[in-house]
Amino acid sequence: MSNSTEPSTFTGWAATAAGAPLERYSYDPGPLGDEEVEVAVEYCGVCHSDQSLIDNDWGISQYPFIPGHEVVGSIVRIGPQARGLKVGQRVGIGWYKGSCMHCSSCMGGSHHLCTTVQPTIIGSNGGFADHVRAHWAWATPIPDGLDPAKAGPLFCAGSTVFNPLVQFGIKPTDRVGVVGIGGLGHLALRFLNAWGCEVTAFTSSLSKQEEAKRLGAHNVVASTDSDALKRIAGTLDFLLVTANANLDWTAMLATLRGKGRLHFVGVVPDAIPVHVFNLIPQQKSLSASPVGSPGTTATMLEFCARHQILPQVEEFPMSQVNEAVDHLRSGKARYRIVLNASK
Amino acid sequence: MSNSTEPSTFTGWAATAAGAPLERYSYDPGPLGDEEVEVAVEYCGVCHSDQSLIDNDWGISQYPFIPGHEVVGSIVRIGPQARGLKVGQRVGIGWYKGSCMHCSSCMGGSHHLCTTVQPTIIGSNGGFADHVRAHWAWATPIPDGLDPAKAGPLFCAGSTVFNPLVQFGIKPTDRVGVVGIGGLGHLALRFLNAWGCEVTAFTSSLSKQEEAKRLGAHNVVASTDSDALKRIAGTLDFLLVTANANLDWTAMLATLRGKGRLHFVGVVPDAIPVHVFNLIPQQKSLSASPVGSPGTTATMLEFCARHQILPQVEEFPMSQVNEAVDHLRSGKARYRIVLNASK
Repeated sequence: MSNSTEPSTFTGWAATAAGAPLERYSYDPGPLGDEEVEVAVEYCGVCHSDQSLIDNDWGISQYPFIPGHEVVGSIVRIGPQARGLKVGQRVGIGWYKGSCMHCSSCMGGSHHLCTTVQPTIIGSNGGFADHVRAHWAWATPIPDGLDPAKAGPLFCAGSTVFNPLVQFGIKPTDRVGVVGIGGLGHLALRFLNAWGCEVTAFTSSLSKQEEAKRLGAHNVVASTDSDALKRIAGTLDFLLVTANANLDWTAMLATLRGKGRLHFVGVVPDAIPVHVFNLIPQQKSLSASPVGSPGTTATMLEFCARHQILPQVEEFPMSQVNEAVDHLRSGKARYRIVLNASK
Repeated sequence: MSNSTEPSTFTGWAATAAGAPLERYSYDPGPLGDEEVEVAVEYCGVCHSDQSLIDNDWGISQYPFIPGHEVVGSIVRIGPQARGLKVGQRVGIGWYKGSCMHCSSCMGGSHHLCTTVQPTIIGSNGGFADHVRAHWAWATPIPDGLDPAKAGPLFCAGSTVFNPLVQFGIKPTDRVGVVGIGGLGHLALRFLNAWGCEVTAFTSSLSKQEEAKRLGAHNVVASTDSDALKRIAGTLDFLLVTANANLDWTAMLATLRGKGRLHFVGVVPDAIPVHVFNLIPQQKSLSASPVGSPGTTATMLEFCARHQILPQVEEFPMSQVNEAVDHLRSGKARYRIVLNASK
């Protein structure tokens, strides 16, 4: 335990205005909270949500702020009330970095549904920096055998697509579809293949067919091919939408069998018109979810270590963060970008 | 076992054109199927779906046909392959009267999701008659102690609102809302009160407040009172919509807590605009379901007998079926109508 009142300065790369290049930026993080840990950043993923906040796509950005919420690093300081962690331990921090710990959601293990859960980069500074802090419960140890240089995206993209498999009891005998083969979708294919499911990838372009199969898909369907969708009508138990696109949702719902679920982890721009009579006869559901709880993230990491599941990443030096963000904006990232803080 | 080839004539009341009064009508039902039972009708409920088919609201009615799919009666003949039933036994028949028995849904106990499930009054004749037939699996014995004169509506209205409690694992510790205090909703209130839940009734008019409490609601909220809806935001685990009305679904979704479900058993006329960002943060679901399987209906009947749950009915002689349908059309039925075939 160290003296939590010692002065310190954190330095990173901040967004200063919508769409502007990130700039070097230092801030005083104040005293370390009693229940907080301080992490020296080794790697940090670059997520579409970072870009959305940099560009103020959601209208809630407050500048300046340091993006970055797929942090991997080592604990360098620890508050006196922090539990289960020690200095020198390697941990990850994702989209959230704190919650109240006492509401029914937190007490029930669903900390991610705490109504006062604290996003890592909304109202505070994130991991495109030398240091970042989190509540101890939200700093999840990285198991041995999982490459820290690639693990960062598991804490946002990974947990987001793993969470519904746990929450909705996906079974190895299920037939599961994944819509969108990108940062989230490529991890979903790997998870579901290891989960034992029959996996169908839905992609806007069949040019990704071989790639989807390499990532774990048994079948590939063009999401805009209405005849192909009709051929698989009534076959899927679960359809996980990772794309942020507007598709023919009635046709997508029709691919589900009885008790099937159309589940969203991507923020589809337009409202989805749901006709109740398309749900009633086969008792279908539609739902959506955020990143998982710390418990689910820990379970995911254990699963990843056992099956050697990691995101496919492109590494950039942290000093080239603006090039990394531009590469993400270009849509050409395959499939996640990780910043290396030592470079 | 009787001779299944003996000739017979069934007589009842048929719809002959959209909206026209029902007329006396006889038909030859043909030989009794090997797996069928023949039931002498004692009582038959009058359901909104009967009215919809009489009036061709769904554009699928084929005249003439005899409505009626909330049948209570006694088995008078039984096919040689029928299982578990005997002549003289009192059974009920609901919205469906047969399914394939061998698909994955039927084999999995979800006969109600069989894709070739056979509605009782679409393409065949129902229970506003002296006799009706069903596959043995869909003729469910009525337990001792349950008044047969009131049990009919349990086989459609009852099973429709009971089914989601079973399917979605509603717990006695849950806080559950019921939207619409009518034929379905009044039974849902009784079920949920006996289920042990905290029950909130949503009604278009607070004039039904005392009535809703008498039926089992602990709280009553006006479904159009946006301030009242805001006051209960984030509190409900499950919200069962039995009304066929267009409401403010965004406000209704907001009444749910984390992992909450907005569930429909009524065919809401317009598409529901679902914004994914209203579902993601608290991991909410939206779903819909039909009447339950024979297994669920049998479970419901046992529950009804134990708790003496029956619909509140108004009885009409079968000979006054047209008056009964007009009373239903008037919206004044409290809450279900049953025809007595002996009068």
